[in-house]
Amino acid sequence: MLTGDLRTRSARSTSMMRSQPTTVSEKELDPKTKARMALESVGFDLQESQQYIEYARGLSGKLGRFKGGFRWLYLCAAGFGAGAVAVAICSVLKLVNEAKVGAQEQLFQAGYGLGVRYLAWVGSSLVLAAVAGFLVCYVEPLAAGSGIPEIKCILNGIDLPNVLRMRTLVAKALGIVCSVAAGLPCGREGPMIHSGAIVAAQFTGASAGPLPTPYRITPEARDMVAAGAAAGVAAAFGAPIGGVLFAVEEGASHMNPTILVRTFVCSAVAALMVRFFAGPRGEATAWGTLGADVPVEFGRFAVQSYTIFELPVFALLGIFSGFAGALFNFLNLKLSLWRMRWVGPRGHWRFLEVLIVTAVIISFNFFAPLIKGGSTAMGDFDVSQTLFVASGDEAIKQLFHGQERIDPWMLLFFALIHYLQTVWTYGLGVPSGLFVPSLLGGAAFGRLVGQAAQGVTLLGARPGVYALVGAAAMLSGMARITISLVVILMETTGDAEFGVPIFIVVMAAKWVGDVFNEGIYDLHIHLRHVPLLEHRPEKHLLALRAGDCMAAPVVCAPQISRVQDLMDMVASCRHHAFPVVQSSSGHFVGMVERNTLMHVLLLGGKCGAFSDCAEANGKGKVAVSYSNMIRHGFPQCPPLASVREAVAAVPEDQEIDLAPYANKGSFTVEEDAAANRCYVLFRTLGLRHVPVLGPDHTVRGIITRKDLLAAAEHGEHGEHGASAGAPSPASEARKDSPGECGADGSQGAGLPEPLGGRVAEV
Amino acid sequence: MLTGDLRTRSARSTSMMRSQPTTVSEKELDPKTKARMALESVGFDLQESQQYIEYARGLSGKLGRFKGGFRWLYLCAAGFGAGAVAVAICSVLKLVNEAKVGAQEQLFQAGYGLGVRYLAWVGSSLVLAAVAGFLVCYVEPLAAGSGIPEIKCILNGIDLPNVLRMRTLVAKALGIVCSVAAGLPCGREGPMIHSGAIVAAQFTGASAGPLPTPYRITPEARDMVAAGAAAGVAAAFGAPIGGVLFAVEEGASHMNPTILVRTFVCSAVAALMVRFFAGPRGEATAWGTLGADVPVEFGRFAVQSYTIFELPVFALLGIFSGFAGALFNFLNLKLSLWRMRWVGPRGHWRFLEVLIVTAVIISFNFFAPLIKGGSTAMGDFDVSQTLFVASGDEAIKQLFHGQERIDPWMLLFFALIHYLQTVWTYGLGVPSGLFVPSLLGGAAFGRLVGQAAQGVTLLGARPGVYALVGAAAMLSGMARITISLVVILMETTGDAEFGVPIFIVVMAAKWVGDVFNEGIYDLHIHLRHVPLLEHRPEKHLLALRAGDCMAAPVVCAPQISRVQDLMDMVASCRHHAFPVVQSSSGHFVGMVERNTLMHVLLLGGKCGAFSDCAEANGKGKVAVSYSNMIRHGFPQCPPLASVREAVAAVPEDQEIDLAPYANKGSFTVEEDAAANRCYVLFRTLGLRHVPVLGPDHTVRGIITRKDLLAAAEHGEHGEHGASAGAPSPASEARKDSPGECGADGSQGAGLPEPLGGRVAEV
Repeated sequence: MLTGDLRTRSARSTSMMRSQPTTVSEKELDPKTKARMALESVGFDLQESQQYIEYARGLSGKLGRFKGGFRWLYLCAAGFGAGAVAVAICSVLKLVNEAKVGAQEQLFQAGYGLGVRYLAWVGSSLVLAAVAGFLVCYVEPLAAGSGIPEIKCILNGIDLPNVLRMRTLVAKALGIVCSVAAGLPCGREGPMIHSGAIVAAQFTGASAGPLPTPYRITPEARDMVAAGAAAGVAAAFGAPIGGVLFAVEEGASHMNPTILVRTFVCSAVAALMVRFFAGPRGEATAWGTLGADVPVEFGRFAVQSYTIFELPVFALLGIFSGFAGALFNFLNLKLSLWRMRWVGPRGHWRFLEVLIVTAVIISFNFFAPLIKGGSTAMGDFDVSQTLFVASGDEAIKQLFHGQERIDPWMLLFFALIHYLQTVWTYGLGVPSGLFVPSLLGGAAFGRLVGQAAQGVTLLGARPGVYALVGAAAMLSGMARITISLVVILMETTGDAEFGVPIFIVVMAAKWVGDVFNEGIYDLHIHLRHVPLLEHRPEKHLLALRAGDCMAAPVVCAPQISRVQDLMDMVASCRHHAFPVVQSSSGHFVGMVERNTLMHVLLLGGKCGAFSDCAEANGKGKVAVSYSNMIRHGFPQCPPLASVREAVAAVPEDQEIDLAPYANKGSFTVEEDAAANRCYVLFRTLGLRHVPVLGPDHTVRGIITRKDLLAAAEHGEHGEHGASAGAPSPASEARKDSPGECGADGSQGAGLPEPLGGRVAEV
Repeated sequence: MLTGDLRTRSARSTSMMRSQPTTVSEKELDPKTKARMALESVGFDLQESQQYIEYARGLSGKLGRFKGGFRWLYLCAAGFGAGAVAVAICSVLKLVNEAKVGAQEQLFQAGYGLGVRYLAWVGSSLVLAAVAGFLVCYVEPLAAGSGIPEIKCILNGIDLPNVLRMRTLVAKALGIVCSVAAGLPCGREGPMIHSGAIVAAQFTGASAGPLPTPYRITPEARDMVAAGAAAGVAAAFGAPIGGVLFAVEEGASHMNPTILVRTFVCSAVAALMVRFFAGPRGEATAWGTLGADVPVEFGRFAVQSYTIFELPVFALLGIFSGFAGALFNFLNLKLSLWRMRWVGPRGHWRFLEVLIVTAVIISFNFFAPLIKGGSTAMGDFDVSQTLFVASGDEAIKQLFHGQERIDPWMLLFFALIHYLQTVWTYGLGVPSGLFVPSLLGGAAFGRLVGQAAQGVTLLGARPGVYALVGAAAMLSGMARITISLVVILMETTGDAEFGVPIFIVVMAAKWVGDVFNEGIYDLHIHLRHVPLLEHRPEKHLLALRAGDCMAAPVVCAPQISRVQDLMDMVASCRHHAFPVVQSSSGHFVGMVERNTLMHVLLLGGKCGAFSDCAEANGKGKVAVSYSNMIRHGFPQCPPLASVREAVAAVPEDQEIDLAPYANKGSFTVEEDAAANRCYVLFRTLGLRHVPVLGPDHTVRGIITRKDLLAAAEHGEHGEHGASAGAPSPASEARKDSPGECGADGSQGAGLPEPLGGRVAEV
């Protein structure tokens, strides 16, 4: 082979790869684009390089069976863990609550006045809130809120950093005990869901023993997290099926019967765990008893019938709750925007806000029952008074099952106050779920309606049933959850009879709410500019072509490349994946991911992947095996410095054939394909990037989820796909800056999304 | 423009299109391939031609909102219809059963002997069975069996003809009343599911009024059928959530939250309908009462607790049921093969078999209780004797809720006999579901275990609970249903407490059963060689390339084609879709479907789609609009004769530009992509055909689901993907014969799947 020939080719290939990054300074970008660029997505697609196929075939014989067995083991362990966290939270919470109420009792009996009792009550609440606030404001900001938006993002394919860390779990679990015990309108359920997901995620990272990889690949990891979240729901409500449906409805854009069953195993274990401890903890039943003797969270209904004439009343209640939920979301959104602007996600101001809000709410709730008159001792309160000072699930039980008529004015007063307090609290710097507060608010409204309807002909009106239905409606109006909510309430009241009425109100509330705004979780996701792919593809995406929303030009790697050129390419940009193109024709060959490329560069020298004429020597041979990469930490990127070092030791002008490492089956779209089709591909199959091919089979651009969303939003604001020729907002906004490969060790290599560089040829 | 130029091009394009079909006579094909070729699949993919996009944009403004409204209306109507069918079946069944038992009573009181009573009993059963058998053997063979396999196939994307016709509904609904009333071990639930799907399907065809199309497009139609099937389950068991989950688990390979909610609306209406009538029919409650006062199918459990120590016992019961279910499937498979060979799907032999089986089973069951001795009057039977003559759900209620101890030997005797009778009956020429018979068999075994375990320390052993658990296990062992079964049993006993134990047995039974064979529905699907795409992609599909399983060469249409050439192409083959390629370079442009092409040829003359130089005149313009096609019956194919006539009227050498009618975004795969990836695409996105592109962007072949399955099976039988170079079984077996376009008016044009033709160029 002539050296001249080689030189020519490598000169060309160099020019092919080397990009002239046109850096756009960070200031020029709008905050949304900036926020989005800071986030990475995760690819759930099948890896299909020759390298991986060889590995998988080797594996299927020996370890295939074990792999399946270990998966069930992990699932059970994750369920067990999620259950254990829930049991721990509930048990501690029970103790703290008993202590708080007991202290009041003792102070009253010791003859102390209202002032002292008030100070003791608010003081203990402030201490608890301070602990919760400290954990959020100074330890882990991600422990704030319910955690459901974060889990939703992760299941959607966005790699939010730190959400699944142990530290977050500790802060969240400890924090939620404190914020609930402080008396704030917070639910422990959302944080339990988040906790379950974190527990499950630990197993995907920890499988480094006998079965090094199976659970590290992203689709497996995602399924584990989904199962963990379901287990969290199951543990929170003792509702295994509700948990699975919650994971389906809120989380997984991608679901099939196999994953469904796996998720169910995990959540059944969690539910079993919780139910096992719930009986004895309530001191009602002997150890080992399960079934109906175990107290369920919201209590069982003794009478479980209703008439068909009540269904329209329920529907009206649903419509009302839809309005109320939409208003809630609107108010909370405004408040959250104010908070983002003036308070920030952590630090002193946020901590101070926690203390102030706690002091105001707890003080108000301490004195509010007293406007009714009567004894000032908590022990002597009637139901309408207890609502203000009892814990959320106790209050819900009262509203569901209380037989006597509750003073309607006090009930209305409570319902309104509680609604406003919940608006104020959600988004505060403490862990706080939304399930129980919104159920409680809804139950209060529902009970009001039920008491008003009592005695009306044809209506069997039992106020408790109305409270149940109202609770479901309010939660659906805020969070727009439907089927899973129905099932959760069925399981958590231990009865399947109210399925249809609950479903009717839930749908009514959702439809009405959807007219005004999105669900609260989605609103909070959008506040952070997370590029979430919702279910419904935008209609105008049908009229937009893939070519309109792709980022171009793309940094491509020629199939036969000089090692040094590849090193330069990797170092000069932060793209996550590179199309491999035929050196001569520019035809698309496949996609190679950054982490694979880095490992190949790191290990290629030792494994003999490089040669001075790759076309002749060992073309198409897998020199760096997948298992070898795994031993070196794949799928994490090796540090750029060590790759550089390894490449420096390679003699100059060595070449490598990238074909065996490229995902040759990678999904591609035509330039003329509708953006809608890309959307479906991304969402259904969990892709991270799709190369766009021209009619001559060359790479014209690349699409990521951010491009798609930007195009969708651009289209929404009046400019339609007709402007096909003009540069798309995506390709304009997304010039990337060169940078080091962040070796932060997080999943997916910790790098921003790949994007348009500049390519001289191709 | 020069005419010579045009001539050259049209000469080339003619050679491009005209295929030399190498006919393989039908005899040479093995029966499986033949059976598969007779079946068509349905494409659920997005249509994305310029033509459709223009139509959709026009629609979204005016009719978009109405479309959504009508969908909900249709869903409710479908649910209502499914409920009405179920109510009708149940009510008639109740009357017939009462008459049969009443006659026995009267004969006994009138002093008639055992012989006369026997003749009356068997005679009435034979008459009923004859009606059921007649409906299957002479009216509609598809009314046989449970219908669940058929629905599963349809939701998977296979267009089984006649399954969703009104005639099938009538035969099925009438037949199931007769076969159940005859006393055969048949359940009415499967047929109710099938009926629900048929009712829903009527709406997809009937929407020709103000909103002509939306529900005719295949994805909408499929979702309606899924919703209808769910409504059928909901109506059969009064289990709306179970219905939805059943649709997810058994049916829809493709599911998202929106469809989930739609399905739920449909099944909630059905459940409500059934529950509304169930109370008054049982004469227990006033009209309009709902909830727990309405009797549920299998009765409510008074005591609903169990201990953790019983879980291992349940698991053992599950393992046993897994074995029993697998054996059941094995025996029934052998019997079905025998039936396929000697009895056939319809006609006299099948009818005769019905009569013989009925006579034997009913006679046996009439005398079996008498071996215990005691009175020979049915009214005096104890529980163990009643089991033989009671209807399935009555017997299940006895086993679930009977307080006294049932004679274990009689119970064992019944369990075994019933098991064998069910094996014998399933697949007989009568409508017959499998749910209730297998639940009953399982309940009998479970009750045996429960009675044996009663009194053992640590076990709370209530025999009824064991019967419930055993019932779930047996059904899961046969049908391998999991989550939906758990929920159905929860809802149908009105209680959510037994979720975890049922889940444990169900999973145990499924896992054990899966070691030996597939579920009974899948076995019956495979018996018919239906190309069903199961959930789990075969592992060795990872090693197989798309190029190995595609059919090649393909009949392609050049983008600029002579009208006459297109006519010849359409007439000479029965392919369902044609890749459109650039006339000069052969690069892939998009896919055009046969029905679109036929309509364009039919209407093009009137609409001015043809010109003598398409490249110059009106290139890229949509001349035949989508709404125009719809007015002419799209998506059905127009008759070939009328297309021929229309084309004959077109002056010679007129041309058309196919680009505006081609689906430009059509998913494609690279030749080197893994077959596994195609499998995922087909299954998840519901595709019908995927063109395979070479590295130069020309069409190398086309893949259909049949190709994929053939490749998978080929691989299974020892030959692995290593033989990449050799011609694949698919491409060998699938030369197609030329034929007329069948204008049978059925969905999807009634044509066999597109197959490899032969192309001179490209």
